[in-house]
Order: sequence, then C-alpha cells, then structure tokens
Amino acid sequence: MGKLLIVGTIAFDAIETPFGKTGKILGGAATFIGMAASQFEVESAIVSVVGDDLPEEYLQLLRDKNIDLSGIEIVKGGKTFFWKGKYRNDLNTRDTLVTELNTLADFNPLVPENFKDADVVMLGNLHPDIQMSVIDQMSERPKLIVLDTMNFWMDHTWDELMAVIAKIDVITINDEEARQLTHEHSLVKAASKIQAMGPKYVVIKKGEHGALLFHHDHIFFAPALPIKEVFDPTGAGDTFAGGFVGYLAETKNITFENLKNAVIHGSNLASFCVEKFGTDRMLHLQKKEVNDRLLQFKELTQFNIELKQPQTL
Amino acid sequence: MGKLLIVGTIAFDAIETPFGKTGKILGGAATFIGMAASQFEVESAIVSVVGDDLPEEYLQLLRDKNIDLSGIEIVKGGKTFFWKGKYRNDLNTRDTLVTELNTLADFNPLVPENFKDADVVMLGNLHPDIQMSVIDQMSERPKLIVLDTMNFWMDHTWDELMAVIAKIDVITINDEEARQLTHEHSLVKAASKIQAMGPKYVVIKKGEHGALLFHHDHIFFAPALPIKEVFDPTGAGDTFAGGFVGYLAETKNITFENLKNAVIHGSNLASFCVEKFGTDRMLHLQKKEVNDRLLQFKELTQFNIELKQPQTL
Repeated sequence: MGKLLIVGTIAFDAIETPFGKTGKILGGAATFIGMAASQFEVESAIVSVVGDDLPEEYLQLLRDKNIDLSGIEIVKGGKTFFWKGKYRNDLNTRDTLVTELNTLADFNPLVPENFKDADVVMLGNLHPDIQMSVIDQMSERPKLIVLDTMNFWMDHTWDELMAVIAKIDVITINDEEARQLTHEHSLVKAASKIQAMGPKYVVIKKGEHGALLFHHDHIFFAPALPIKEVFDPTGAGDTFAGGFVGYLAETKNITFENLKNAVIHGSNLASFCVEKFGTDRMLHLQKKEVNDRLLQFKELTQFNIELKQPQTL
Repeated sequence: MGKLLIVGTIAFDAIETPFGKTGKILGGAATFIGMAASQFEVESAIVSVVGDDLPEEYLQLLRDKNIDLSGIEIVKGGKTFFWKGKYRNDLNTRDTLVTELNTLADFNPLVPENFKDADVVMLGNLHPDIQMSVIDQMSERPKLIVLDTMNFWMDHTWDELMAVIAKIDVITINDEEARQLTHEHSLVKAASKIQAMGPKYVVIKKGEHGALLFHHDHIFFAPALPIKEVFDPTGAGDTFAGGFVGYLAETKNITFENLKNAVIHGSNLASFCVEKFGTDRMLHLQKKEVNDRLLQFKELTQFNIELKQPQTL
C-alpha cells in the first residue's frame, strides 16, 4: 500500500446546471481527488485549510474514506473557500458567479510528519508558491509528483509556476491551457514543449473529448465514457486526477504502460462523478460498479485488427 | 473481393488554410471515398456527373486506383461542381466562399449494369432523392448501405431524407448534425433515436475528437490520431467513410466487431488525408505507411488492465 499526499482546496460549492441547483455543498479539488483515490489501496492525507463554518459532517465524510485529515488547518472564526457557478446548456462552459477565497487567502500548508515520505504527491490547483512549499517539505523525493494548474496562474504567477513545473513529473492541464502555456495550437507540439519545461509526462484533459497522455514520442488516449446525461461536471477533472494518482500510489509502478492504466482509471471514475451533484455519486460508489464500467471502457476502445503483410512488388 | 458502389461528387475545390492556398484542384466526396477505398481489395465504381472542363488527367488519377468510371456522366459544354472555402486558424471551422452546383444541379445518377449487385453501397452527401434513386436501381438488396448526409438536407429536404434514412444500414454524420436530427444534446440519446429511424449502426464523426460507432447498447470509440500539424482538413470525413466501406467491402463481414475495425481503418486513412492539400497525400499513399500508422493507433488506444475481484465483506 502506497502513501499519497494531496494538497488542494476543501470548499463550499453552490452549483446551477440545466437540471437544478444546490445550496452550499461540499466541494473543492482535494475533496474530489481524495474520494477518487480512496477507491484504491492507499494511505492518503489531505493538506488544506478551512474555516470553522465547515460542518463537521463534511470532514467526517472524508475520514470515512480513510483519509488522514491531520494536515487540514481549521481556522477559528474563519470562513471556508466558496465557489458559486452556473453551467450553460451544453454543460461545457460555466460562468463563475462568486469566488470567496476566505481562509484560502492565507493558506500556509503544513505536511503531516508521517506523510513527508509519501510515494506520490498530488498538487491540486492552487497558487504555485503553495505547491512549491509542499514539495520543499518532503523529507525525500517522492516517486511521483503530479501537478494540476490552470490559466489563472499562467496569467498572474508565470515565474512561480515555471519554478514548480520544473520540479514535477506529471502535469495535468486542459487543452486550452496547454496551448496558452506553449503558444502552440497542436497538442502534440504543446506536449513536447511542456516536457522540455520539466515534466516527463503530460496529461491533457479535453473534458467530454477524453484525455491524452504524452511521454517522449509515445501518446495514449482515453475517451470520456459516453453517458446518457451529464448532470454536473463539477469535480470531474479532480476526480480524474484522484483516480490517476490513487492507482499509481497503489501500484507504485511508474512506467508509461502503467500510466496508461492510471489514465483509464481516472477517466472511469470521472464518468461517475458527473452523474450527480457535487460528491453525491462518489460518496457511495461501489467496487462492482467501478469494475463493470472498466469493462465498458474496454469494449469502448479495444479492437483486434490483424495487420496484413505489405505487398512487395 | 467485394464490389463497392460509390455515389457522390467529383469536384473542383479551391482551398485556403493558414498554411497556404490552392487554385482549382481535384476534390469531391466520391473522389476522396474512392481513393481511400482503393487501399483495400475491392472492385469499386463511382456514379457521378462532371462537366467537360474537368481535366482528363483527374479522371485518370481515379482510373489508376482501379476505380470503374463508367458511371460518371460527362456533360458536354457543362461545368464541374466547384467549391471554394477558407479555413480559420484553428482549422475546425471554415467559411464557404463559393458554391457552384453547375452540372450537379441536374444530376441523374445511372448505376452501371455490373455494379447493380454491389455488396456495399456508399451514398455520399447529396440530395436525398439522388441517394434514393441509386438504392432503387440496385438489382438486389446490398449487404450494406452506408449514408452520409449533412445539415443542409435536414433544413431543406426533411421528408426525402427521412425516406432514405429508413432504407439504409449505417449513417455517418457529425455530432452537431446528430443533435439537429434528433433534438437531443446527448450523443448516446441521439444515436438511439437515429437507430429508431432505420439504420442499425450510427457513426458520429467528431473531427479532431474522433468518431463513435453505436449499435444497440454497444458503443465503440476511435480517436483521431494526434498529429503535429493538420494542414488541410478537406476530405477527411469522406476519406474516413471510404476507409470504412472499403474495409467492409473487402471483408464482407457485417458485425459490430468488424465495424469497429472499419472505424479504425477509416480514422487511420483520414489521418493521412489532412497532411497535405486535397488528394495530394492519398494519391501516393503506401501500404507500409498505412500499416505503420495502424500500429500507432493500437499504441494510442490499447491498454491492459486486469480487473480485481470485487471485495465481498
């Protein structure tokens, strides 16, 4: 069993989709990453910050998934990070209505002593200085450091972001962010440029259009499972990342072949996440459902073409 | 060796992309379908109409691919269908600058006698009445009828289109057209509704995002091969269709498993088509290149996850 350290937000989300809306519910990158990773045989911990307005029952939901919460700072009198957003009809675009950083504004991450030797570190989308601070606190170089980031940090903290990118093994970003980071429209060229910045592996997330894994000249692609109705995309990217790092922390096998499997596991779990609001679907996810859908992924993508010998004239 | 009948346009195209522009070059759906299908062991024929302004050398290019052209009407003093378009920077959208139907306006398709028993019929994107006329001329029901169409016919000839769709086995359309045809945003729901209209198989083309094959509850997905630079997308959809029907005409094996292979062969050939202007890349395509890229498709999509037994508590 491997050790997985997750740094990221624990948040209140308020979500509106064409199918309904929620009040303040449990959200945040670390929440989705942790829940997805809990599907694997891992010892995991979250480093985060919240206010004391976060209901104890929300923390208990994470503890119930065997996640160590000793790295979560609870600020007395503080308010938890809050995000409110509304999805448009195609569910591919969303408008942010409210962002209140609250306690996140002064987040000073503290890695628990017994996770300073974690095998895998997942740096959720946060200020690159916070991500760097977590790397610096590790007592030994983790087997794998995975970074998630977004365009906001490219716009406002370019140098700090570049410093972190130079130190990590895998970056997960979406297609538009990969283009912004490299000024290349072709994702093949973008992935090549990003590898030159540091990470040996590049995962480009394309939402409903799947995800690409790049490593040197090798490319692997996993589609998103076509489902009848996407209900709420919130947390899908983080759930993908959680499945990806959870599987790698369990197997401790860092090869391109095994990273392919990690991408499939991430895509598989993300396909559940979008079926209900927030964490609702992930909370009660059963192993059998997960395995059944992995079989669907196989049916969706596997084929058997026998290659004929080229004709020689 | 199976017999393949192709009905579709042979055209002059004038293309502008961010990488350059052409004068009038050889284009048209039947041209791209025929060239792609010629990669397989098939006896194929094109039914089309052109003016006598079409250079004899263009027809010879098709004859050199062993395509029977006896079903191409050459109208004396007539002008060949002409399309001029310009792609935007992302190459995903294009603006049509000129469409001159010319001889296509009065196209009365005549199926050559010795292709009235074709195994596979590919109805390229045309007025549904023309497509229906070809079906009606067949002496026996082909093993497989594949239809390509577009939003224009949904807007202007709905009833005629529905009559053709009821008679075919496979429809290939893009994602937006599938949505327009069914008023369903979810492609899973759209494919289900389309199957209720007639076709047992639905292929939804998503351009750079790959293609989906639907049959009852079964779904198969083939990505587009990520390539460094898409040079000119013209003809990619028709090349996909040509590879699809060419492979099926060669194998004469109409099962979901074999249609999966056909989708891969179509995607594979389309990945070559976009590398140069018009038919340039397809004209000199070698078997070895095709096979090598099929191996890339395998590396891109195949994985090997062993499923663990679900834990029983």
